[in-house]
Amino acid sequence: MSALELDFLFHPQSIAIAGVSDVNNPFNTGLKFLEALTAFGYKGKLYPLNPNGGEVMGLKIYKNVKDIPDQVDYVISAIPSRYTPQLVADAAARGVKAIHFFTSGFGEIENIEGKKLQTEILEIARQGGVRIIGPNCLGIYCPEGGLTFNPDMAKVSGPVGMISQSGGNSAYAVTEGNSRGVYFSKVISMGNGADLNESDYLEYLTLDPETRIITAYLEGVKDGLRFQKALKAATKVKPVIIFKVGSSESGAEAAVSHTTALAGSDRVWEGLLKQVGAIQVYSIEEMIDVTVAFQQMPVPKGRNTAIVGIGGGASVIAADEFSRAGLVLPRFSQKTRQILIGNFSTEAGRIFKNPVDMNSFESHEAFIKTIKTIEADDNVDLLVLHIAFDHFGLISSEDKERMSRAYHSFILDLKTKVEKPMAVILHSFASDRTRKLASDIYDSLTKAGFAVFTSIPRAADALSKFIWHREWLNTHTVTQN
Amino acid sequence: MSALELDFLFHPQSIAIAGVSDVNNPFNTGLKFLEALTAFGYKGKLYPLNPNGGEVMGLKIYKNVKDIPDQVDYVISAIPSRYTPQLVADAAARGVKAIHFFTSGFGEIENIEGKKLQTEILEIARQGGVRIIGPNCLGIYCPEGGLTFNPDMAKVSGPVGMISQSGGNSAYAVTEGNSRGVYFSKVISMGNGADLNESDYLEYLTLDPETRIITAYLEGVKDGLRFQKALKAATKVKPVIIFKVGSSESGAEAAVSHTTALAGSDRVWEGLLKQVGAIQVYSIEEMIDVTVAFQQMPVPKGRNTAIVGIGGGASVIAADEFSRAGLVLPRFSQKTRQILIGNFSTEAGRIFKNPVDMNSFESHEAFIKTIKTIEADDNVDLLVLHIAFDHFGLISSEDKERMSRAYHSFILDLKTKVEKPMAVILHSFASDRTRKLASDIYDSLTKAGFAVFTSIPRAADALSKFIWHREWLNTHTVTQN
Repeated sequence: MSALELDFLFHPQSIAIAGVSDVNNPFNTGLKFLEALTAFGYKGKLYPLNPNGGEVMGLKIYKNVKDIPDQVDYVISAIPSRYTPQLVADAAARGVKAIHFFTSGFGEIENIEGKKLQTEILEIARQGGVRIIGPNCLGIYCPEGGLTFNPDMAKVSGPVGMISQSGGNSAYAVTEGNSRGVYFSKVISMGNGADLNESDYLEYLTLDPETRIITAYLEGVKDGLRFQKALKAATKVKPVIIFKVGSSESGAEAAVSHTTALAGSDRVWEGLLKQVGAIQVYSIEEMIDVTVAFQQMPVPKGRNTAIVGIGGGASVIAADEFSRAGLVLPRFSQKTRQILIGNFSTEAGRIFKNPVDMNSFESHEAFIKTIKTIEADDNVDLLVLHIAFDHFGLISSEDKERMSRAYHSFILDLKTKVEKPMAVILHSFASDRTRKLASDIYDSLTKAGFAVFTSIPRAADALSKFIWHREWLNTHTVTQN
Repeated sequence: MSALELDFLFHPQSIAIAGVSDVNNPFNTGLKFLEALTAFGYKGKLYPLNPNGGEVMGLKIYKNVKDIPDQVDYVISAIPSRYTPQLVADAAARGVKAIHFFTSGFGEIENIEGKKLQTEILEIARQGGVRIIGPNCLGIYCPEGGLTFNPDMAKVSGPVGMISQSGGNSAYAVTEGNSRGVYFSKVISMGNGADLNESDYLEYLTLDPETRIITAYLEGVKDGLRFQKALKAATKVKPVIIFKVGSSESGAEAAVSHTTALAGSDRVWEGLLKQVGAIQVYSIEEMIDVTVAFQQMPVPKGRNTAIVGIGGGASVIAADEFSRAGLVLPRFSQKTRQILIGNFSTEAGRIFKNPVDMNSFESHEAFIKTIKTIEADDNVDLLVLHIAFDHFGLISSEDKERMSRAYHSFILDLKTKVEKPMAVILHSFASDRTRKLASDIYDSLTKAGFAVFTSIPRAADALSKFIWHREWLNTHTVTQN
């Protein structure tokens, strides 16, 4: 079977939700799923289920999945775990193809009964031809299929697929991603992965034409050899960004209790990921940073980076952080430096090395000239512009805003004027006002197609990993087949 | 001379500002200083200076500092560098005690004339008994003395002193600090430090009774042995938190061009700071994080940390990050675990190890019982509570807000109920709405006296360094005198 056959999981025509109360109760997850799917604009049919029957949101509540008169493609279970074997049996009888278990209390709890229950539902599902998502998870977010586990998530699709062994981290990754202009094709919160596991989803995303970048939050894997094979196949065709947790003893124990995952040795993971060309990250924020680079910019030819911005202290920090991340800041030629100095009326307060501290751009023209001069230097593979916000004295909030907006419009103008890969860093915003300002400028630059980052060290790290991936491809493409 | 004699720098009774235009020009720094000091509520007399005379903001503009009829304690220079030797001579003749040079274009530029000019003003100042702050800097922020270089900075004083070789980084540190509930006694943006340098200011802050915590952003030092001695004396009596930059080759070059600083070897710095018990940090944000711990909480007896929050994925990450930072997550005794489990109606979806994942607190009572149970465990030195914001599925923004506010009120209630050191982490807020919510809760908890952090790894790092400082004191107190 081709992994793409799992595509039915993301486009069910009808969904039954088990455990929907007809009374508004903030702890009734079934009702929350019904509300979320409705608010999100799910286009198929929705069938609430509850042994007591009744009506909710204008829909009849069926007492049993078997009572639903039409075809049911997909079931969401939000009932207590002890009732789940019967639900799986009934769903199988009704011809349901997949059940997502939000329900927890299976293999992940200490009580041995949970493990027994997980084995039981798995057996019934296999006999009945039903695939299981979870248990103990949030399920699927797929804007194109109208599926979600959170009504606030973007309804827009994007190139990023995600596999997550934590519902919370998948929800956060989407929210953080959306706020950064990163959009998703499919996100799978897979919980214990009792039936379909990380390898199944990875194989699927590798083939999925709607997914161009694969990300994963992993606590451990079920079958190391199979996962390794799936990962090798994936990295051949798409960038794969992995946040592997459970590296500490306490973290590994927590992972077992969270989703039954066996974390495995940290060193083995690091070695494996490096070997197969997967990008290892250490937080959800970093995962999104690296994704921003892949989604928004062409890959630089090499590590030679020129940095331009305003602020001497920020320039020193940028030099340190980019060097620490393994990027190279080449010296400009004497000729380049003389041209740079000539673009401004005075040298005072400015630095015409790499990084360049413009102190202030005297004019739009001086700014554009500066960037073009640097781009023309053969030693430069990558241009990085940074905007500091709360990094200045003596500037009223109004002037700060005016200055930042001017800088922003100058950068927008570079889109058609600069050909070399370019990234923008917005940093050092701490007050409510500048935070809002930075957020506005972030959105505008991202929509215009720039790769934008929100801190100097995080940008340095993400860009370094982005270039590493290209280097890996360059050295492995020949021998790969 | 005692370093405390520098106290006059922070409490001038009158200030003359050289280079004030009577026309509103956004690039006229003299006028910006006049406006900033007025808006900040400086209580002494202000005398604008300009060779053309005139009037501005209802004040007479004097043509020369010598023409001012009253005593002038302090001069701010915002004139072009070529006029500065005359200004120093005139100020000396008028009995001025200190000049702060915002003016740049001295030792930090490549043109040799800048270096000559710096030597020249220094000689005139020394002959005339005038101390120089800078040149090439923002000068002094001291809320109690009414001095500032930014009208938006807090008018409230606090326990934190700061020495900064970058104006931008000092402005950002104050803004970031203020937004985190950190307040300052004195901040010195010292630029090139041609006369008064980092050692002078460090000796002053060591003696200053208004400063309880010393922070510094350093690009290099003038006199290594003197600085080492000053630092040793400082760490004996106050925590000293240092962000030393210029560790990369490009960064070190940028530092020279920025403020003439010679960065020195990275390894030497690391060794020195560790040896004398100064806390090394690697960003302004980290400096503020560590300061939050010192300002807001008692020091834990040891590294044994218990973590409590909501979210399985967040718990795994917290375990990894706290372990990576060198904190220890002890296992709870079987007895403690049984009590914990007994506080809730069901084990499903929860983790009763360390970290504890409450999934949801069923009630205020269950929450308080949980915390008290953990506090009672002898193995626990430090309690860490974390609140995730955009980390949940199926929760409407309204419910998320209600839940976070409930959690917040439960934590407030702990203030009088828990005696062991406790820290709170607010994390994973990515949407505009949750960011605002987190910011509100941050402010409320901080005002109530909690130490609050905004990310799991940053909290782990800051708390580890906070405890390291205590450990250093414990092993060095006996041999110190």
